[in-house]
Amino acid sequence: MNLHALKKLVVGSPLATAQARHERLSKTAALAVFSSDALSSVAYATEEILLILVLAGSAALYLSIPIGVAIAILIAVVVSSYRQTILAYPQGGGSYIVTKDNLGTLPGLISAGALLIDYVLTVAVSMAAGVAALTSAVPALFDYRVAIGVGFVAAITLANLRGLRESGKLFALPTYLFVGAAGILILYGLVRWALAWDVAAQATRPFTPAAQDLTIFLILRAFASGCAALTGVEAVSDGIPAFKPPEARNARIVLGWLGVILVSLFMGITFLARHYHLTPMVEETIVSQLARQIFGESLFYFFIQGATMLILVLAANTAFADFPRLSFFLARDGFLPRQFGSRGDRLVFSNGILILGGTAALLLVIFGGSTHGLIPLYAVGVFLSFTLSQASMVRRWLARHEPGWRWRWWVNAVGATTTGAVVLVITATKFTHGAWVVVLLIPLLVVMFMAIHRHYADVAGQLSLDGYEGPPPLEHTVLVLVGDIHRGVIHALQYARTLAPSVKGVYVELDPDKTRRLEEKWIKWGMGAPLVVLSSPYRSLLQPFLEYLNHLLALGDNHMVTIVIPEFVPKHWWQHLLHNQTALLIKGALLFRKNVVVTDVPYHLH
Amino acid sequence: MNLHALKKLVVGSPLATAQARHERLSKTAALAVFSSDALSSVAYATEEILLILVLAGSAALYLSIPIGVAIAILIAVVVSSYRQTILAYPQGGGSYIVTKDNLGTLPGLISAGALLIDYVLTVAVSMAAGVAALTSAVPALFDYRVAIGVGFVAAITLANLRGLRESGKLFALPTYLFVGAAGILILYGLVRWALAWDVAAQATRPFTPAAQDLTIFLILRAFASGCAALTGVEAVSDGIPAFKPPEARNARIVLGWLGVILVSLFMGITFLARHYHLTPMVEETIVSQLARQIFGESLFYFFIQGATMLILVLAANTAFADFPRLSFFLARDGFLPRQFGSRGDRLVFSNGILILGGTAALLLVIFGGSTHGLIPLYAVGVFLSFTLSQASMVRRWLARHEPGWRWRWWVNAVGATTTGAVVLVITATKFTHGAWVVVLLIPLLVVMFMAIHRHYADVAGQLSLDGYEGPPPLEHTVLVLVGDIHRGVIHALQYARTLAPSVKGVYVELDPDKTRRLEEKWIKWGMGAPLVVLSSPYRSLLQPFLEYLNHLLALGDNHMVTIVIPEFVPKHWWQHLLHNQTALLIKGALLFRKNVVVTDVPYHLH
Repeated sequence: MNLHALKKLVVGSPLATAQARHERLSKTAALAVFSSDALSSVAYATEEILLILVLAGSAALYLSIPIGVAIAILIAVVVSSYRQTILAYPQGGGSYIVTKDNLGTLPGLISAGALLIDYVLTVAVSMAAGVAALTSAVPALFDYRVAIGVGFVAAITLANLRGLRESGKLFALPTYLFVGAAGILILYGLVRWALAWDVAAQATRPFTPAAQDLTIFLILRAFASGCAALTGVEAVSDGIPAFKPPEARNARIVLGWLGVILVSLFMGITFLARHYHLTPMVEETIVSQLARQIFGESLFYFFIQGATMLILVLAANTAFADFPRLSFFLARDGFLPRQFGSRGDRLVFSNGILILGGTAALLLVIFGGSTHGLIPLYAVGVFLSFTLSQASMVRRWLARHEPGWRWRWWVNAVGATTTGAVVLVITATKFTHGAWVVVLLIPLLVVMFMAIHRHYADVAGQLSLDGYEGPPPLEHTVLVLVGDIHRGVIHALQYARTLAPSVKGVYVELDPDKTRRLEEKWIKWGMGAPLVVLSSPYRSLLQPFLEYLNHLLALGDNHMVTIVIPEFVPKHWWQHLLHNQTALLIKGALLFRKNVVVTDVPYHLH
Repeated sequence: MNLHALKKLVVGSPLATAQARHERLSKTAALAVFSSDALSSVAYATEEILLILVLAGSAALYLSIPIGVAIAILIAVVVSSYRQTILAYPQGGGSYIVTKDNLGTLPGLISAGALLIDYVLTVAVSMAAGVAALTSAVPALFDYRVAIGVGFVAAITLANLRGLRESGKLFALPTYLFVGAAGILILYGLVRWALAWDVAAQATRPFTPAAQDLTIFLILRAFASGCAALTGVEAVSDGIPAFKPPEARNARIVLGWLGVILVSLFMGITFLARHYHLTPMVEETIVSQLARQIFGESLFYFFIQGATMLILVLAANTAFADFPRLSFFLARDGFLPRQFGSRGDRLVFSNGILILGGTAALLLVIFGGSTHGLIPLYAVGVFLSFTLSQASMVRRWLARHEPGWRWRWWVNAVGATTTGAVVLVITATKFTHGAWVVVLLIPLLVVMFMAIHRHYADVAGQLSLDGYEGPPPLEHTVLVLVGDIHRGVIHALQYARTLAPSVKGVYVELDPDKTRRLEEKWIKWGMGAPLVVLSSPYRSLLQPFLEYLNHLLALGDNHMVTIVIPEFVPKHWWQHLLHNQTALLIKGALLFRKNVVVTDVPYHLH
């Protein structure tokens, strides 16, 4: 079949179940795999803070430093808190599982809903920021940013459908390239600052007048936007089974490294952006402005932009592993359609991948490929799942009293309280800017999860064999629809007679003259079966037949009617257009009718 | 069903076959019904002549008078020629039937193809011209002309689907209003000319410089454009059975009247347009310019524009009777799909009406609602069918020697020769302006007609019972697809056992552990039927099953396999999304497979 060949070309040949394998990662490889999402957010977090502050004019931009410090502290709190989770869940502690375990199903589902939304936003935001890194360096591409973003999403969706795994080799190079490039940028920038080389340049920066007052609310909003820097921090604790043994210990070390690198890069960029008095611009990112300022338009500038773009694309790719996996867990527990629970030809959860790619591409189009437009929707879900996950740990330590539980309880309690407060800040300050969508969507998703669960439970109950005493005896009538008498009809009649000894032909009369001729032929070819003739004053084939059928079905609840429809199959598909689609019409009208079975009997023409 | 209710609301309740009725028309009513198409063309024919002449500059416009005279002579020839056809075909002499009768099938099909194209163009051109009459009077609507035109086509399509008949009452008023309005315009204009009242106004007309040389070719092209005035002249001879008796005599009289009125209106407008030195303008029609010149922007001016618009819309409406009728004849003879041969709920040929409306609307969009753009495609088909129809009559008189055949032979011979020459002129002068489309399309349609005919003949031969000795004996295997064991599967198994004594369950194994549990349940619930377990290394449900099926089918050519698929039917349609669509998948894969019957057995959930 052609469709099959096309799918094979695009997605590749099927893989056998036995080919599923697991790769264990060293600490350096694991850092690369699990940190790309978190580290890549430094490419836009500083800019999002400045974008809000600049509303109060250039003079307010100095506040980026204290806000940056607050976010750095928040990172430290969250990292410490997750290091406790790793100890408790060495098999992998995704927020859905941890929360469902400790706080119950409903909080677990809230966490799952928040995460699903978040994975979609991770793809959209990372792609938008990745394209922004590209168009900052090559401004001619700016007008095509939506198309480029959608193209990237399509490419990564395809790669994942083919079964791109979270391979250490694939991730190590871009992640370390970015860490190296950003590190050099920051270090060299600090040197120039220490030696006061760029004093003249600062004076030339444009002055932006204030559009709003500098209120506490605005400062909190800037902080809320900067919280995007924390997205992806939880990835290490989700992926513990992929570490080389001792898994939990290695994961804790890597999470520590991640925290240190993240804080360093984020604070470095925030400090230098302030030092150079950088102001956010529509067509160029802050990182690009900074790199251009420090290195000029040299080869190294383009290298930095390229590395930034690459890590952002990889960050999107991690969501392509996380979203289908969470969907699988949800489907396994009956909260999402079963289709999310099965692996495709290439051993990946194709349905989840397709939905993630499609939704993210749609968001890119809706928001015109702009990172800033998407940011207000972002961190809500992340921090909600942080909070639920930490709160679960608080409950767990209290319930189990494992070694060191008092101290760990404190760490997680601080984590839960802090991230909970951040959820409130983000929701309040960004509500009217788009966060309301997420606040509305999470309960809707939870209601959907529960409705699906109820449906599956209900179906299972109705189909259950517990206490079932077998079906009542069945009566069976077989009808053959006759429009004319030809070889195809005789073939169908013969087939029908193998199904049941007593078969009736049914003919809907449109023209009485034709009926007489047909009845004569039926005497010769009808194999002794009676022919029922139904009259049709309105030339409808369907109506008289349905009335007759209703009459038969009224005979009893265990009376089944099989309708045999002779259908001749022409050689070429287009020839179907040349024949009345009576069979299709009748099948459509009787679809899912109780106690009715519609059977086409094909007769092949050559 | 909802769709059914919607259709009823839009199209109306079904009508019984016995409600079909025929209305006989008096001569005045018949003139109104059958002349609207022909008469309405005077609204644009003069303008189309001027539009070509003006290419050679204002100085060339005087040629409209001799060209007009040539066209008037042509009208006289064609009318005389068709008066002979009426005598020979008192049951109605449409070009397809007349040509097929006398010249054979292929010329008949050429004529039919030309006519079908022509009916579509009649709708498009008349609507475009009708909208131009409206926007000339209300220039604010000019920018919406495409939308208005498509809206008119949609409205008239709907009216015809509901069963608007060619009612004398409906047509009489607008046709006579137009004849009256145009008559007063011309008479009063001639009075003003005779009394030389408008000499000053003429001098103010703008002078247009020549863009092309005034060649014979250009003059012939102007003549070809003006031939649009003849479209619709054949309508009377198609509709003879609708006249009161004596039908043929009344029809000949009406056709004579039509010729006289048509020539008068066309020559009157052409003469006055020349007298006032009118020049074609994009935003105002010649008739509107003329009416404005003679009556000023008075109420009568708007009356003329309204009457013009109305008759153009009616002209389009006649094509809605002709196109489906011709399609019906073609379908009856096996040259178009059968679907064109059946009447819909409202006793009209719905398929033909829909295709005509859709294609005409599409043309309006493609040509931006411009009459001028469509004109080069127009008259080719009309004159081709004129020529074939007259040539048929020439052949007929020669063959039959009916009373007066010598004289009639001469009339038709002159008609055929003249219209044949016009076909050549139109094709040659307008070929590169769009006529090529029609020249290409007519043979394509003929090839399609013949391919359809061949297909039907082929099918009829294969299905024929002549020499058929009945079907060979049939062997029958019934398989029940088992995915799990629940009440729905047991219901399907019970059903399958009423079909054949030996039934097999078939299970595709994805997980060996599940197989063992299933086999245990099967012992209890399987009703003694054997269970075939197929292994699936690539997790595909379909592939192993298809291989097994191929194995069974290979047993012999008269071995049929019925596949029973248990399908449970949830209460709400959206719940279908929550279940694997295995049944659909398998039906799709086996669609029209030889010797395979797929049977869904629904199990209803509440």
